[in-house]
Amino acid sequence: MSLLVTGSIGIDTVETPHGKRDDVIGGSAVYFSYAASFFTHVRLVGVVGEDCPRSMFDVFKERDVDTGGLEMRKGSKTFRWHGSYVKDMNEAETVEVDLNVLSERAPRIPQNFLDSRYVFLANTHPVLQQEMLGSLKSPRLVVADTMNLWIQTERPELLKLLGKIHGLVLNDGEARLLTEEKNLISAARAVLRMGPKFIVIKKGEHGCLMVSDRGEFVLPAFPAQKVIDPTGAGDSFAGGMMGYLATQGTFSSATLKRALAFGTVVASFTISDFSLAGLQSTDRDRIDDRWHEFKQAMSF
Amino acid sequence: MSLLVTGSIGIDTVETPHGKRDDVIGGSAVYFSYAASFFTHVRLVGVVGEDCPRSMFDVFKERDVDTGGLEMRKGSKTFRWHGSYVKDMNEAETVEVDLNVLSERAPRIPQNFLDSRYVFLANTHPVLQQEMLGSLKSPRLVVADTMNLWIQTERPELLKLLGKIHGLVLNDGEARLLTEEKNLISAARAVLRMGPKFIVIKKGEHGCLMVSDRGEFVLPAFPAQKVIDPTGAGDSFAGGMMGYLATQGTFSSATLKRALAFGTVVASFTISDFSLAGLQSTDRDRIDDRWHEFKQAMSF
Repeated sequence: MSLLVTGSIGIDTVETPHGKRDDVIGGSAVYFSYAASFFTHVRLVGVVGEDCPRSMFDVFKERDVDTGGLEMRKGSKTFRWHGSYVKDMNEAETVEVDLNVLSERAPRIPQNFLDSRYVFLANTHPVLQQEMLGSLKSPRLVVADTMNLWIQTERPELLKLLGKIHGLVLNDGEARLLTEEKNLISAARAVLRMGPKFIVIKKGEHGCLMVSDRGEFVLPAFPAQKVIDPTGAGDSFAGGMMGYLATQGTFSSATLKRALAFGTVVASFTISDFSLAGLQSTDRDRIDDRWHEFKQAMSF
Repeated sequence: MSLLVTGSIGIDTVETPHGKRDDVIGGSAVYFSYAASFFTHVRLVGVVGEDCPRSMFDVFKERDVDTGGLEMRKGSKTFRWHGSYVKDMNEAETVEVDLNVLSERAPRIPQNFLDSRYVFLANTHPVLQQEMLGSLKSPRLVVADTMNLWIQTERPELLKLLGKIHGLVLNDGEARLLTEEKNLISAARAVLRMGPKFIVIKKGEHGCLMVSDRGEFVLPAFPAQKVIDPTGAGDSFAGGMMGYLATQGTFSSATLKRALAFGTVVASFTISDFSLAGLQSTDRDRIDDRWHEFKQAMSF
């Protein structure tokens, strides 16, 4: 089934203890799309400025990603992010950020994408997330991400969005901020009362947690020895999760659990190299192998 | 099989966001013994001062714990610890600590304990740990804990100890300090090269990790909604783990994994109330039920 993603596309500069990369492809929708494309056909919706080299999207040529929703806007500049993990591999320090085109109007979803059944609304302004969701004909599973900024500044709109989606993916700090609950299980339960049917809380190197009315599911992160660049781990996690779900057609607890494990494994490839290089180095067979290895590493 | 533990016995004062308890029973050997006694017969070796009320050990009357190795030393004072989790439930702030009798000579292991086959050397000076280990006749599985202080001040003696034990249990910060490796898998592998056959790294609310030459095993913490007092969680974890191992007779990967899961579950009871009250509120049946619940909560 077709999986639609809308989110940021950016030009990143990233520093980690392992080196620095200038002007590499990044953004939530980019990592998500690449990660999900190991599982299903992906429709990418996003906008860049005229400064963005077309060649940057060559990475999608070999992938099952339809870039027909990619707008290159004249007179605008591409979103740019410069982050550093030199002090702490678990939290990016933003050295510089230029929203540029992301602060303008949202990209339009192409007509032939409007029948998408699986939708991931990557982090952006909750009004834009609602607008894009509203234009879709009959979405079957809608999952969104958000961030501290919107929780703090656009709470009423964010709460409206939460009433319209099936799942919310967010990190531990965001879950605590949204609910004012320190305990993550309590926080997830509080978010459930805001509308979504399931909540996935990402804890970075400490794994993730899913809570629904059918109970809790906890996963450690894949025990990775090689962590080169954590950028995009959360978006790749969501991509692997949604990509797998789009192939299943059911959202049983068992299916959601397997999906979270696929998200975990795909993210472990992302962080093994800079930018998209970690994902580019793998394939579905290697992902499946590592999925079984992961299952083994935590079964008792 | 008999499980011997040597470690601290203390009188604690603990503050958490949920309240304060003055002069309650605590110490590594106490939490360990109570936790392990759900599984096997425990031999407790430790020392307190003459200020310690005998009634404090009434908690062990109903348990399968032999307190014959408990020395009440005339002229000495009991170890006292005053900690606070008010600012951070994940890390105790030590308000006051008086080593008292713990800074004197070690307690003697009774003659009838010297044939113990399973041994846990809870955190104390590595010279004392080696002395106590040396007096045992034919230990079959020896696991030790340690702490920052000894890693920083008694490294040569600690390294000698590591050459004599089968397993080491320590927390993430200690593993990083001991090995100067940031990545925990790399840290655990570095400890393996120092002697032990397996390393268990405790990550508090983020679960634990075991590394041996047979691979890695990762576990999230039990998804607990009720965390009242984290004191003793790590020692209860070790107690549950060793208690289960002492009943098994083999140390296969599968057995070690199940043991870590039992440790995780027992610790989840400890943190649900102050001091030993969480452990006192449970029994082996409830532990087994939660073990299955935990297995379910992370199976995919």
